[in-house]
Amino acid sequence: MLLSPQLEFIMEAHSALSAKIVEETGFKAIWASGLSMSASLGLRDSNEASWTQVLDILEFMADATTIPILVDADTGFGNFNNARRLVRKLEQVGIAGACIEDKLFPKTNSLLDHREQPLADINEFALKIRAMKDTQQDPNFCVVARVEAFISGWGCDEAVRRAEAYLSAGADAILMHSKQKDPKEIEQFMKAWNNQGPVIIVPTNYYQTPTETFKKWEISAIIWANHNLRASIKAMQATSKLIFSEQTLANVESNIVSVKEVFRLQNDQELVNAEKKYLPAKSKV
Amino acid sequence: MLLSPQLEFIMEAHSALSAKIVEETGFKAIWASGLSMSASLGLRDSNEASWTQVLDILEFMADATTIPILVDADTGFGNFNNARRLVRKLEQVGIAGACIEDKLFPKTNSLLDHREQPLADINEFALKIRAMKDTQQDPNFCVVARVEAFISGWGCDEAVRRAEAYLSAGADAILMHSKQKDPKEIEQFMKAWNNQGPVIIVPTNYYQTPTETFKKWEISAIIWANHNLRASIKAMQATSKLIFSEQTLANVESNIVSVKEVFRLQNDQELVNAEKKYLPAKSKV
Amino acid sequence: MLLSPQLEFIMEAHSALSAKIVEETGFKAIWASGLSMSASLGLRDSNEASWTQVLDILEFMADATTIPILVDADTGFGNFNNARRLVRKLEQVGIAGACIEDKLFPKTNSLLDHREQPLADINEFALKIRAMKDTQQDPNFCVVARVEAFISGWGCDEAVRRAEAYLSAGADAILMHSKQKDPKEIEQFMKAWNNQGPVIIVPTNYYQTPTETFKKWEISAIIWANHNLRASIKAMQATSKLIFSEQTLANVESNIVSVKEVFRLQNDQELVNAEKKYLPAKSKV
Amino acid sequence: MLLSPQLEFIMEAHSALSAKIVEETGFKAIWASGLSMSASLGLRDSNEASWTQVLDILEFMADATTIPILVDADTGFGNFNNARRLVRKLEQVGIAGACIEDKLFPKTNSLLDHREQPLADINEFALKIRAMKDTQQDPNFCVVARVEAFISGWGCDEAVRRAEAYLSAGADAILMHSKQKDPKEIEQFMKAWNNQGPVIIVPTNYYQTPTETFKKWEISAIIWANHNLRASIKAMQATSKLIFSEQTLANVESNIVSVKEVFRLQNDQELVNAEKKYLPAKSKV
Repeated sequence: MLLSPQLEFIMEAHSALSAKIVEETGFKAIWASGLSMSASLGLRDSNEASWTQVLDILEFMADATTIPILVDADTGFGNFNNARRLVRKLEQVGIAGACIEDKLFPKTNSLLDHREQPLADINEFALKIRAMKDTQQDPNFCVVARVEAFISGWGCDEAVRRAEAYLSAGADAILMHSKQKDPKEIEQFMKAWNNQGPVIIVPTNYYQTPTETFKKWEISAIIWANHNLRASIKAMQATSKLIFSEQTLANVESNIVSVKEVFRLQNDQELVNAEKKYLPAKSKV
Repeated sequence: MLLSPQLEFIMEAHSALSAKIVEETGFKAIWASGLSMSASLGLRDSNEASWTQVLDILEFMADATTIPILVDADTGFGNFNNARRLVRKLEQVGIAGACIEDKLFPKTNSLLDHREQPLADINEFALKIRAMKDTQQDPNFCVVARVEAFISGWGCDEAVRRAEAYLSAGADAILMHSKQKDPKEIEQFMKAWNNQGPVIIVPTNYYQTPTETFKKWEISAIIWANHNLRASIKAMQATSKLIFSEQTLANVESNIVSVKEVFRLQNDQELVNAEKKYLPAKSKV
Repeated sequence: MLLSPQLEFIMEAHSALSAKIVEETGFKAIWASGLSMSASLGLRDSNEASWTQVLDILEFMADATTIPILVDADTGFGNFNNARRLVRKLEQVGIAGACIEDKLFPKTNSLLDHREQPLADINEFALKIRAMKDTQQDPNFCVVARVEAFISGWGCDEAVRRAEAYLSAGADAILMHSKQKDPKEIEQFMKAWNNQGPVIIVPTNYYQTPTETFKKWEISAIIWANHNLRASIKAMQATSKLIFSEQTLANVESNIVSVKEVFRLQNDQELVNAEKKYLPAKSKV
Repeated sequence: MLLSPQLEFIMEAHSALSAKIVEETGFKAIWASGLSMSASLGLRDSNEASWTQVLDILEFMADATTIPILVDADTGFGNFNNARRLVRKLEQVGIAGACIEDKLFPKTNSLLDHREQPLADINEFALKIRAMKDTQQDPNFCVVARVEAFISGWGCDEAVRRAEAYLSAGADAILMHSKQKDPKEIEQFMKAWNNQGPVIIVPTNYYQTPTETFKKWEISAIIWANHNLRASIKAMQATSKLIFSEQTLANVESNIVSVKEVFRLQNDQELVNAEKKYLPAKSKV
């Protein structure tokens, strides 16, 4: 998918339920966002959750869906050996690819202001990518190298240098991150990059740029990185507030889905059918 | 709280994030709904998640909040011995109470149509409650006995008989469930019950009944059982659909909270302060 | 393997480490014992560990070995639906087969004296086996039906009746359990069974019977069910005692393996080689 | 205990079962060894297990015992923030203290030959200890600072400098590690240290030194670091081999404990009593 000539869109999810909603909506791939997953756990996007706690969420997400899931794997949760182990486990639970970023463990979210964002050694990071590629058993498993050069305040030259090194180490695509309100860094990079390999972007901050512009620059894929989480927060805050202040459910039903819709999302019908097949006629269990 | 003379409200959450939103809204207690937690895991409300997978969610919820959490503990996940072990672990992670229902393991959601809902043996269930009460170390830990007599199609006499048995076995309160569109079963029960002990209700289906009515009947607490989940589903479905069809974020920002609000909910400021205190001045980590 | 004409031996393990030792010794298959796993967790063999806690151990065992692991899955941890979910997860982590027993959840260990051992409904259990067989994706995954008729005090007729029902429901083999000090129940069963399908036995209590006898009866496989656990307990009790009383390690080295042997079992050499390949020449990480 | 005037002994365990054996033997404290726990998981002592996977083992250990458990917490599994979170979780599951070492994440076992063992920045590590001490809620929770200066090839001056910095940052004790076959490094350190605070040692490699010598040097505590694991490996290898080659259990019973002893270690009697109390007279569950 990453190599297809047309622009692809990858939508954020942070739970099995949100992942299923993404799939049902029609998206072809899911972004398992580190920010969203940590926020839903009540934790910060600073590797406060262990990598196996993240893996547990991913397993539920993969079990609930059939489209590819690209996981935001932070820095790989350690060195090349941790990243290798991660790849094995991701493949086992059915995750389609991992994106790792060239920062240090534990990471800091890239959109936070006034925080140091030290970069990983370029060689070490390239070798980590190679280790991951050497480890994967499924030839379709993707490793995406996320370049944090712009986030850390380095310029375009460093971004290109790193992107080239990671691509040559085996990365299937480059994720070029920028937190500017406009996409100038991305534009500058795409010109210098000259289409050496697929590039993914995350326009959370420069969201007002028309998608046509990204197509023109020959971006391969766009990640809508945290919008299901942010939508759910807004809705839960509003609904909680309404019920709290009115002390009744009378006016809330129109803002929420029915209980039946919850059952449908849980695929309850499959269990009904299975019970007919696998429970004795008069079972009391 | 359950014994207070005034009517209390307990709002549903299914994750640390939703729990924190409930607390911030002003509610005094949280309902950790089995339906909501299972749905968010992409599973059915039929004990498909193991009890320790549920416990993992509860631990994150308790870590993210300071108000009491009452957990929907289904049937106690086995016999009295499983229920004892559950109490020890719930206390350890900081959960304030457990509600168990008098059905068989694995359970079936009470609001599903046309499903058998066999009841547990009344003696066995009462002894299970006693075992839980004998196990708790914190005198404030609550065990709520949920009576499924109406759900299973038994009448008011059976409901009262069970409520009395469970109360006398040590239950701190009775949760009387009904899935009728009107609260007649509840009304009938409250008259027969004659205020022998605190009663909690879950008006998911009879939500149009004014709260004043429940006050008149001297209900102790109302659980708004799954409305944050249902609000979040509606919002995520709409947001996913909007982004999918428009292929841009341009029109979505007004429907979602800001990234800064996510950081605030994660309490990022505490980490900023801590980094000043605990990271060396020029650290590269 | 279960269908091979010759008698096979399956050796108990309860951890990745013990599983690896079983494989290195030359055994062709591993028995992941419920008794041993629960004991090593400090729990009782009464489903005190959740099924996912057991699954975590199994995953480590499968990761550390290459030979088939047959897991003691108690009663399947619930009804047919729990058993289906179990099969999917066992296949995912690389377990070769599951043995379930026809008792009720939560189970009681079969070798305990003076405990009730109520049997499952024969139809319900047969349908559970069918559900498991219908769920498996790997055609080689095995479902073994363990008949507890003798354990529960029923006679040979009931044992045969159940074995036939389970085999006809799709079980790949029958595990016929007996806790007598002699193998008379097994002998009686094998005569009546008349080789309708593969039979596995667990001679923990009738261990003095020569293996030749079992061959004569055309037993398919023998499970040595808990002997690594019991060996390790004896050794740890002795070693702890020796060090405690002597307050020195001086006399203990001959009773234990070297630290180098621990490193070898951990396959440390692979990491040494990988570090040469994937760490930059002068890395400080 | 660490501050008591007499020499104390801390015995290794790696599972709930081995921890219980340590307690029953008479030891006053347990060392939850990183090497032993990782080996029993089939992993290397290089942070291949996530910190929450380690925590899961520790929880079972704490649940099965009543004496203090000191956990080998490697480098704290990240920076000060990860270490803070670790302290909260260790306290929650009932662990009495954590020992962290001044190396980099992911760590390498200290006894491995020819491996780089880069040290952490001394300031950063001291602040990490302070963060842990500031986080603990139980005043008795211990933070032990393990100095790897000798392991990394630095001399006694660096060892003393680091020990002083960590003690002054709040460490409750210093663990001074050495992998020499004789205790000269330790002797040298103890002279230079001049009893500024409690010192713990791990004589795995210099095990032939009489304990009297350590008493003379005023060592506070000795950790017998991995001997239950190594005893269990030897026993399991021998038992597996015996059963494999003889194809019978006939000659193995004298090398292993009885099944009854397993039941005793599981405290099965408590469940028998509880069943009398909490199961209805004629229950079929």
